[in-house]
Amino acid sequence: MSLVDSLNWRYAAKAMNGTAVPQEKIDYILEATRLSPSSSGLQPYKVFVISNQELKEKIRPIAFDQPQITDASHLLVFAAWDNYRLERIEEVFNKTMNERNLPLETMDDYKTRLWGMYEPLGDEWHANHAAKQAYIAFAMAIAAAAEQKVDATPMEGFIPEQLDELLDLKSQGLKSNLILALGYRDTDKDWLVDMKKVRTPKEEFITELA
Amino acid sequence: MSLVDSLNWRYAAKAMNGTAVPQEKIDYILEATRLSPSSSGLQPYKVFVISNQELKEKIRPIAFDQPQITDASHLLVFAAWDNYRLERIEEVFNKTMNERNLPLETMDDYKTRLWGMYEPLGDEWHANHAAKQAYIAFAMAIAAAAEQKVDATPMEGFIPEQLDELLDLKSQGLKSNLILALGYRDTDKDWLVDMKKVRTPKEEFITELA
Repeated sequence: MSLVDSLNWRYAAKAMNGTAVPQEKIDYILEATRLSPSSSGLQPYKVFVISNQELKEKIRPIAFDQPQITDASHLLVFAAWDNYRLERIEEVFNKTMNERNLPLETMDDYKTRLWGMYEPLGDEWHANHAAKQAYIAFAMAIAAAAEQKVDATPMEGFIPEQLDELLDLKSQGLKSNLILALGYRDTDKDWLVDMKKVRTPKEEFITELA
Repeated sequence: MSLVDSLNWRYAAKAMNGTAVPQEKIDYILEATRLSPSSSGLQPYKVFVISNQELKEKIRPIAFDQPQITDASHLLVFAAWDNYRLERIEEVFNKTMNERNLPLETMDDYKTRLWGMYEPLGDEWHANHAAKQAYIAFAMAIAAAAEQKVDATPMEGFIPEQLDELLDLKSQGLKSNLILALGYRDTDKDWLVDMKKVRTPKEEFITELA
């Protein structure tokens, strides 16, 4: 199925039926997520995979009691770095140079310029910028799920501080940004399932500049 | 080509050869972009398409003289709303209700809750949140380009205020966030083309919570 067909097929499921998503589909979705591009290749986020029902039940009240949280098969929690630090950047760059059999110093000039730009911007800017990279990966997960005919509900509607606490993210230098609930639509209970997909019309969305 | 194959094929081209991307491929990439999901379906961003060489030449110094800007076939500039306002939200919701043949009041409760949450967060939060939605669409454009075997360079490296000025975005209530350069790799000039793709290993990237 082409990406455009996948995007036309998908919608944000509002009710799921509890059916488990096969592990190989979860693995595929996670691999697309992992392959996502990010600014300077830093991948400044991690993905937490939750299929445990008790844990989902603890998350549901944090997510305004949305039923997909517990009726989904798996939840993917996207959690980005709470800030950039030189050591974090160096760790990634060093690994990349090692994988490419290049001297670590290859990246020194780039690293100095990047850190010179990032350092003065401060933690809030850092956290926002890292989160934006996670949104790219989140999009790839949404596209991969649709390609696998797995339903997905993209969710920002939860209290991040409470989820950080529950999953012990702060001690890992992470902040939760997004949840993707993966499962299968409950066509009887989902008010959105038969609604027309509405998007900004092409002529308003796109401007060709001559 | 599957999404995972597309993501393995793609890389951030550092040199392009000036070959034009056929219009039907550009249209396909833009359609995937337009179909991207966004928070509350607001699609709080627009996409500007630039193929005019003179305009690309004006953008290049704003983008730290990166050669892909002028050697690309097309530039897509993603520009998100500079803030949320009740009228902007109402306009989208009203269109959606009209398209679905539902009374406009259907969304009233949701709209009131959403605006009650957004209003106190202020313009900077709004602009960041709108930009995050644009990152989702940006990711879909990257995936769509790779599926079409079109090379793409995702770019954050430009001075947004100067691009906003050049493209007259402020008067439209928009701020530039991202550029996607579309074209074809110049394999002779691109130092990155044969480098190994490096990503965080699966076992570090993904944490399964029992």
